[in-house]
Amino acid sequence: MTDAPRSREQRRADTLALLTTPAIDVWMSTSSIDEDGTAAPYLVPLSLAWLENRVVIAVEERSRTARNLINSGRARLALGPTRDVVIIDAELERALPVQQAPAEIVEGYAGQADWDPRGDDGYLYLVLRPIRIQAWREADEIKGRTLMRDGRWL
Amino acid sequence: MTDAPRSREQRRADTLALLTTPAIDVWMSTSSIDEDGTAAPYLVPLSLAWLENRVVIAVEERSRTARNLINSGRARLALGPTRDVVIIDAELERALPVQQAPAEIVEGYAGQADWDPRGDDGYLYLVLRPIRIQAWREADEIKGRTLMRDGRWL
Repeated sequence: MTDAPRSREQRRADTLALLTTPAIDVWMSTSSIDEDGTAAPYLVPLSLAWLENRVVIAVEERSRTARNLINSGRARLALGPTRDVVIIDAELERALPVQQAPAEIVEGYAGQADWDPRGDDGYLYLVLRPIRIQAWREADEIKGRTLMRDGRWL
Repeated sequence: MTDAPRSREQRRADTLALLTTPAIDVWMSTSSIDEDGTAAPYLVPLSLAWLENRVVIAVEERSRTARNLINSGRARLALGPTRDVVIIDAELERALPVQQAPAEIVEGYAGQADWDPRGDDGYLYLVLRPIRIQAWREADEIKGRTLMRDGRWL
């Protein structure tokens, strides 16, 4: 892209527009520690909802993503194509079995994602609090890429 | 997509076509272990070259991706949009300072990627050996998604 670098305000607006897009997916990276003590990365695409400044995903309780997040509390998420990215470092705030989740999460997730985990057994909503958000397109947008730090929009 | 699930042969052909696309990027997840013993995920987009059945990336020696890979030896890579994905679990085979790399890597990388690390100091080529490769589009392609296992095409 040959446009001028976007302002922080424009990147924040673009980021929020992306996060609230219907049926948007996120690349969700988590990690675990193997029996031999090695750090093991994991990465899958998942459907996201953006509810009350939180990222909400729905995953099987026994999935590796759920286990990694519950064990480590940490994820790093990417949205968008590789040359127009939003990267979010987040921490796990709540893990809610679908049957016990409040209506705003259940309905909010079903309203944005293109599926609804209420039809399946053994699913959790994982509510992630963003700690840092970065957005950039090409090299000229590396400067100014941080939009949120320590959980606060800049 | 409403097409019928692709055959293994078709998925392998599509995967190799994607891996050899000029200027193709990959989502590269790696991980580390924090001082407090927590597994910490990391994720960035990088330019890839596919050379002799290996994924080659070029990164700064001091980058977190380089350090994580050299420490743990493991990465998980994603290519393509979230609903037409190729996922590769890989191990680090070689880490080569740019000035010491053989011509086939230097020229192969510059030929596929849209930049050339020879112009910058402190860069490494990281040569990754794929151990498992999976490819799928929608839910109907989850079955049969594994194309490589234990480093061998199925």
